[in-house]
Amino acid sequence: MDMDTLIENALLVTMDPESRGATGELGIVEDGAVGIADGQIEYVGPAADVDEAIARPRAGAVVDAEGDLACPGLVNAHAHTRHTIVRGAAQDLPEIEWMNRGLGPISAHATREDGVIGAKLGVLEALASGTTTVCEYARRVGELVEEVYEPFSVRCVATETINEVPDDRADLGPEELYPFDRGNGEAGLERAEALFDEYEDETASLVEPAYGPQALDMVSLRLLEEIERRADEHGRRIHIHVAQGEREAIQIRERYGEDGPNPIPGAGEEPTTVSVLDAADLLSDRLIAAHLHGATPDERARLADAGVSMVGCPSSIAAIDGIVPPIVEYREHGGTVGIGTDQAPGPGGHNAVRELRTAALLSKTDRGDPTAMPAWETLEVATVGGARALGIDDVVGTLTEGKRADVAVFDFESPWTAPTVDEPFHTAIPNLVYGGTGVEATDVFVDGRRLLRDGEVAIEGFDAGELIAEANRRAERIFSNAEEDWRDAGSKLVTDVDAGRL
Amino acid sequence: MDMDTLIENALLVTMDPESRGATGELGIVEDGAVGIADGQIEYVGPAADVDEAIARPRAGAVVDAEGDLACPGLVNAHAHTRHTIVRGAAQDLPEIEWMNRGLGPISAHATREDGVIGAKLGVLEALASGTTTVCEYARRVGELVEEVYEPFSVRCVATETINEVPDDRADLGPEELYPFDRGNGEAGLERAEALFDEYEDETASLVEPAYGPQALDMVSLRLLEEIERRADEHGRRIHIHVAQGEREAIQIRERYGEDGPNPIPGAGEEPTTVSVLDAADLLSDRLIAAHLHGATPDERARLADAGVSMVGCPSSIAAIDGIVPPIVEYREHGGTVGIGTDQAPGPGGHNAVRELRTAALLSKTDRGDPTAMPAWETLEVATVGGARALGIDDVVGTLTEGKRADVAVFDFESPWTAPTVDEPFHTAIPNLVYGGTGVEATDVFVDGRRLLRDGEVAIEGFDAGELIAEANRRAERIFSNAEEDWRDAGSKLVTDVDAGRL
Repeated sequence: MDMDTLIENALLVTMDPESRGATGELGIVEDGAVGIADGQIEYVGPAADVDEAIARPRAGAVVDAEGDLACPGLVNAHAHTRHTIVRGAAQDLPEIEWMNRGLGPISAHATREDGVIGAKLGVLEALASGTTTVCEYARRVGELVEEVYEPFSVRCVATETINEVPDDRADLGPEELYPFDRGNGEAGLERAEALFDEYEDETASLVEPAYGPQALDMVSLRLLEEIERRADEHGRRIHIHVAQGEREAIQIRERYGEDGPNPIPGAGEEPTTVSVLDAADLLSDRLIAAHLHGATPDERARLADAGVSMVGCPSSIAAIDGIVPPIVEYREHGGTVGIGTDQAPGPGGHNAVRELRTAALLSKTDRGDPTAMPAWETLEVATVGGARALGIDDVVGTLTEGKRADVAVFDFESPWTAPTVDEPFHTAIPNLVYGGTGVEATDVFVDGRRLLRDGEVAIEGFDAGELIAEANRRAERIFSNAEEDWRDAGSKLVTDVDAGRL
Repeated sequence: MDMDTLIENALLVTMDPESRGATGELGIVEDGAVGIADGQIEYVGPAADVDEAIARPRAGAVVDAEGDLACPGLVNAHAHTRHTIVRGAAQDLPEIEWMNRGLGPISAHATREDGVIGAKLGVLEALASGTTTVCEYARRVGELVEEVYEPFSVRCVATETINEVPDDRADLGPEELYPFDRGNGEAGLERAEALFDEYEDETASLVEPAYGPQALDMVSLRLLEEIERRADEHGRRIHIHVAQGEREAIQIRERYGEDGPNPIPGAGEEPTTVSVLDAADLLSDRLIAAHLHGATPDERARLADAGVSMVGCPSSIAAIDGIVPPIVEYREHGGTVGIGTDQAPGPGGHNAVRELRTAALLSKTDRGDPTAMPAWETLEVATVGGARALGIDDVVGTLTEGKRADVAVFDFESPWTAPTVDEPFHTAIPNLVYGGTGVEATDVFVDGRRLLRDGEVAIEGFDAGELIAEANRRAERIFSNAEEDWRDAGSKLVTDVDAGRL
């Protein structure tokens, strides 16, 4: 077979110790090459041995990556990209105000089309920084698959948000139990099933659907058990926010406690999300738990033992809650962890390289240990870790012959990352993680398609400048229409604005 | 007077509430303009009123900054840029190993010229991300002033390292008192005095010298008192590392305690750096204290009361120590704070925009409070805060008519920062701090000279690509020559390399 594309002379960090010519845990190959045909990786190994193994492609499809680092494309394991349209709307706020007084009054003025443009911008940000897979967690996620991910050809774990909470729950106090709206839940489940139906036969599809029951305070156990039954039967994943805040904890305690409407035997005197999931026999290796900062270490150990994967979102949770996700601890429990960017409205955004540095530095200070979350481990978590967490590591996550060709190439000839050396070790790894800004990504391949070429988006008919201009126009309208509601909501930001700080 | 340069149509964040047409604490001017003549700011205010105030420059010197944010150039209040030549040499290490087993064995192989190239790269990184002043803290800092700062025309607070520790102290255990080498100290003091002599008459000089007694464990009280006497007489600044680690704490306790060779009345039973400085009457508003993480809150309150300025280095201290600098707390004590980047070898680097985000997110998680270190405050600390800490706020640090023209212009048309809006508040401020990568800096002026033009360095005879290539060549030689020493030192990185993680 002839190759379509050959990336050669790169430092390969394959994340696969079994790769041809690779050394060590990270499967490092110096002066390496990656050969791609029909979207699949056909060769990984020393550049010098390519010709013996496989026919070279025509010259135009050879990427000379001398001085560059090539690794599996980064996996963003948890993102809500629609909100990118209101970047800057809500940050530096008390946790209790963030959603209801900060983001909500503004995002409520965004239309369906605004959300699509926001998602396009978010996926552009992700792709331009080396991301090849985004786990998009959204209501009506199929719309984003069709209008964003498929036109961009970016891999997507399409997670359909399912909840049973009526739309007006913002009016309830935190201790008042949400009523459940069974129709809402059924509709979400139907949207998810439609996705599974649509993509189940496409073996080489870039879309992998998943169930997204939003959180245990927002879905009934009855519905969650139905989802678990179906997921078990068909080998699907369930991605749920777990232990993400006090409001959730109160709802669970009130609903599932002894004096509540649904007491659960075996969930303890003060039931928690984890104890209820455990007592209801809902922990399994099909479950992906986002956040987990509100769980106890014992609970996290229990989840890891049960094979539950974790996704940590360092920038987002630091900004919203002032909390560091327990990524390091969960790995100590033996659990699988991926990294996500979550939200853009606050200090999130979807820059994958920046998230590496944030994950590493926050983990070090949280643990009081500069050896926590070293550069190499951070890169591992953000590639193969994310793929494992999402259950797509049979397809991507490492540079391995036979896997789909999701590859990111990073350049180091910038004042942020230079110099780099290869002896006595490859400083490109720490320099990418700690020095990188995102612009180092020069060439990004998804399923063998070169979506980023020499640092520029190479998607037919796509113009980044036009997209940004349209996002600016839409954001101006949204914020302007929202001004009165936002002022009435009266968050701390209103005070800051009135004092001339913003 | 005719202007040389006019920046117009920008969102101005002047940091001067008294600016013409400005609103609020940050002195925000919408559709603003900055007029520059002879290196000085001659106009700050609404673009619409420029023509009434001052003659416009020739067209070529007009910067149309529509959609951009212009603010005082960022002040890096503490940096050792020579080490940029060994970026990636030492990170993810235990604090105790970082210097002696990680960085030291490698940096020992760097020549004088290597250090100059490293400093050039570090200053390029700073400038390209919007920095206009670097407080360079170095032994023989005059060499860097001549070979780096003056050719680049970047403003420099040139802090000469002074210490009395013999060069072979690495062989001593932490509890064995360093012997003091008086000659070393005198030589350092002479180097500092030579700098003061050279630059004292240059009223418009870009160079502001300062004394840099390295740390209280490395200089005698006798020498520090002599420096204080001279600084007091001539109105100079003293910049010292304070309470930066356990090794320092032990030395102070052993030397100045009741059973030590130099007991200090009034410094307490277990003397600390702060208690000794206080008892010796060395606290004053001429003192700049870097780090401070090893001091107690009471000690920090005492320093702030005495008018001592603090410099925090978030990335560096997070990486080296797993600690968050007490920036927020020091400001609560009423103290003046600036931000520095410190070292490049680990996860430092000198990217000013990235340091904003790092400072904010680390502070939030350290305090468990998402409102700590909001975007606007972070930008304030990194501009006027740094200028105040270094004692140069009469010259720079705000956009104010009559000050020298140090200005940074940031663009927002990128996937990292878009969209931005101006109503109901300026999301450019949070989007720069949280979304920015450094590449947003498009035009940077120091003393009225346009050193960055449309994102490219515009220094005559300077080629960034050549500098990076030379840094790569030199780094290869340094690391290669250092390999044996580095292996013999046996840090944790050696284990990681042997396991194929780097």
